Amino acid sequence: MNLTEQMKQLAKQAKAASRELAKLTTAEKNACLLAMATALEQNAAAIKAANALDMEVGAKLNLSAAMLDRLKLDDKRISSMAKGLREVAALPDPVGRILDERIRPNGLKLQKISTPIGVVVIIYESRPNVTADAASLCFKSGNATILRGGKEALNSNQIIAKTMIDAGKAACQGFPEHAIQVVPTPAREAIPILLSLTQYVDLCMPRGGESLIRAVADCSKVPVIKHYKGVCHVFVDADADLKMAEEIVFNAKVQRPGVCNAAETLLVDITVAENFLPRIGERLFAKHVEIRGDEATRAVLNAKLKIQNAKLRAVSEQDWFTEYNDYILNIRVVDGVRAAVDHINFYGSAHSDSIVTNNEAHAKQFLAEVDSAAVYWNASTRFTDGGEFGMGAEIGISTDKIGARGPMGLDELTSYKWLGFGTGQVRT
Amino acid sequence: MNLTEQMKQLAKQAKAASRELAKLTTAEKNACLLAMATALEQNAAAIKAANALDMEVGAKLNLSAAMLDRLKLDDKRISSMAKGLREVAALPDPVGRILDERIRPNGLKLQKISTPIGVVVIIYESRPNVTADAASLCFKSGNATILRGGKEALNSNQIIAKTMIDAGKAACQGFPEHAIQVVPTPAREAIPILLSLTQYVDLCMPRGGESLIRAVADCSKVPVIKHYKGVCHVFVDADADLKMAEEIVFNAKVQRPGVCNAAETLLVDITVAENFLPRIGERLFAKHVEIRGDEATRAVLNAKLKIQNAKLRAVSEQDWFTEYNDYILNIRVVDGVRAAVDHINFYGSAHSDSIVTNNEAHAKQFLAEVDSAAVYWNASTRFTDGGEFGMGAEIGISTDKIGARGPMGLDELTSYKWLGFGTGQVRT
Repeated sequence: MNLTEQMKQLAKQAKAASRELAKLTTAEKNACLLAMATALEQNAAAIKAANALDMEVGAKLNLSAAMLDRLKLDDKRISSMAKGLREVAALPDPVGRILDERIRPNGLKLQKISTPIGVVVIIYESRPNVTADAASLCFKSGNATILRGGKEALNSNQIIAKTMIDAGKAACQGFPEHAIQVVPTPAREAIPILLSLTQYVDLCMPRGGESLIRAVADCSKVPVIKHYKGVCHVFVDADADLKMAEEIVFNAKVQRPGVCNAAETLLVDITVAENFLPRIGERLFAKHVEIRGDEATRAVLNAKLKIQNAKLRAVSEQDWFTEYNDYILNIRVVDGVRAAVDHINFYGSAHSDSIVTNNEAHAKQFLAEVDSAAVYWNASTRFTDGGEFGMGAEIGISTDKIGARGPMGLDELTSYKWLGFGTGQVRT
Repeated sequence: MNLTEQMKQLAKQAKAASRELAKLTTAEKNACLLAMATALEQNAAAIKAANALDMEVGAKLNLSAAMLDRLKLDDKRISSMAKGLREVAALPDPVGRILDERIRPNGLKLQKISTPIGVVVIIYESRPNVTADAASLCFKSGNATILRGGKEALNSNQIIAKTMIDAGKAACQGFPEHAIQVVPTPAREAIPILLSLTQYVDLCMPRGGESLIRAVADCSKVPVIKHYKGVCHVFVDADADLKMAEEIVFNAKVQRPGVCNAAETLLVDITVAENFLPRIGERLFAKHVEIRGDEATRAVLNAKLKIQNAKLRAVSEQDWFTEYNDYILNIRVVDGVRAAVDHINFYGSAHSDSIVTNNEAHAKQFLAEVDSAAVYWNASTRFTDGGEFGMGAEIGISTDKIGARGPMGLDELTSYKWLGFGTGQVRT
């Protein structure tokens, strides 16, 4: 079978499985998830053995220590996957929610109800725990999954999927064995083929670096929900509580710089710059954060703090667009809310942005006009997260506007349909 | 300026306009729409003159009489456009609806609110009234529109858009003049260029024949919401009220065969085929409907009705996939709900399908398992329509699953964002 036929078979099997998945009850789905969790723990030795093969391949490929660490599965990480599955089992079923209901003058009752999407392709990088996380969220929401992880994680991903499928089948007669499939080849050409099969595949979600996501979006004929990057901003308004601003900026930048909802750029209103910048500068420098400032920022910091050049640099145009995921922060002094909003809408990535102010009019303008998935007033950007939003689990954060936007939990893995309940109505 | 630069300018202007549009109040938007309606009526002479140029071009292009009729604008059609705009003005603003609200344990209040999508490209065929309809719905939902109609309607489309823009600007100071733009060239290459500009364009909605929609979906890098075709089914179950079934099938096929929600295929349960087929056959033949039946259907009809071959033909495999938009109906005898569902999910277009039955278990199975935008129990498929659903107006019917599904009114032209209201919350 050539690659095209192989991908077509995979996708066709997934579509058929998705029809069967839609018939499972909530209790059946939860029983499967709990059985899968137990099976992952019981099968830990085999999973670690498969993972050891991947680690060998990874070492031969000269993966960095960080990459190898992400690839590695140990008992703790396997338990953590199992725990994740049990948490998904405990969440409410996102399918069958009544989203709208109306009775028309002719007596026809219309109900808008949530449904599975169908077949979801997930493309991701190294970390094999994504296999269990993504598959469990898709399964709970009634979707068949086709998983494509990094080539160096193929053995790990396959055994995780097989363990879950075997457990699902044992736990529930109606469990379709193609509900969870791993693309069985590392061939790069598999992706564009798979993502051309619009008759079978309903959605693709790439997770990973910007270049991976761009490559997927470029080749896909099926809808893609993506999260390119998180270039998040905090704007300290003229009417900000500067102590609060200090805490929020510090948290947004430093609490966990490696994640997408960490801030990359601080915007400070010109009227408070002289007062605020030295305060936040001191705290950031103490944490070894590099500041890339515009001229006004550097003038203030140089005058007030006499900082060594090493930690204070001139910002470049490209820096404003950059997700550092590191201890680096751009700072710009701006003249008012309008300028802050314009900066964010131009340079930002439509992820998460925050205003710190006690001025309600300024806050409302910012909340209304910043065109991002999550916009905060007096809170850290770090809250954009499925768990923090009370979704219980998260498969990603969308910076798109069609389909889900912001954190994607189980509800965001559903579509909907309209049901019409009649008593013989015809159109006149 | 070459075509690429021209399209980029158009898209960039639209994005800038979308930021301004988001700031208009509901009252301002409605005032603009009412002014636009009046202006279309007052400018009728100039609109008809521009349309006359298009009609000349159309005649030279040897357009069919039906095509020329669709292209033509007269006072009645101009009034009808104006009426449409007034109706849109009267509808509730779809932006700013609170879709969800939650307060987290840390006191952070999260609100999920509807927002404009941003920049919407509409690609459509001949009928110039779509220009006013689509632009008004997009405008009311806060979206900037880029319109691309048929090349034979370019003069008509341009004057309609210009009339609306001029009226909008006169009615409201904040009205951005690039809120509504018509692609100024008939060049085919403009479309793939425009639909590659993902940094500016948020959504494309093609309206028209299957080949147009496929061509757009194939070349687009921006999300597309499409409606390929309406291959709709009525299934007459073993436990159907056959009188009701007769009325529903007749209505679904004959009341207006040229539209997407008309039925193309009738499925009849084997246990009622002998009784039901002659009844419905008689009524359909009386209306000159051609029946394309499977063997079982033809056997019953030939035995009971002695119909001439001219109106009763054998159905082909391809026929099951075909949207006739005509007085033609496929009929198949099936063994139970399961077989009906399988037929629909395989051959259908995920548009609108109906079961006629008094058996609640059968109905529930059908409603749950048919994977279509609208699924009816004891009602005609013809109800899938923005007006019939109480949406007030409709920009199209989506057979997609990401973003809107089914009839798309104003609400379906919105996205959402999350607002976070804090009092200094940081993540720990």
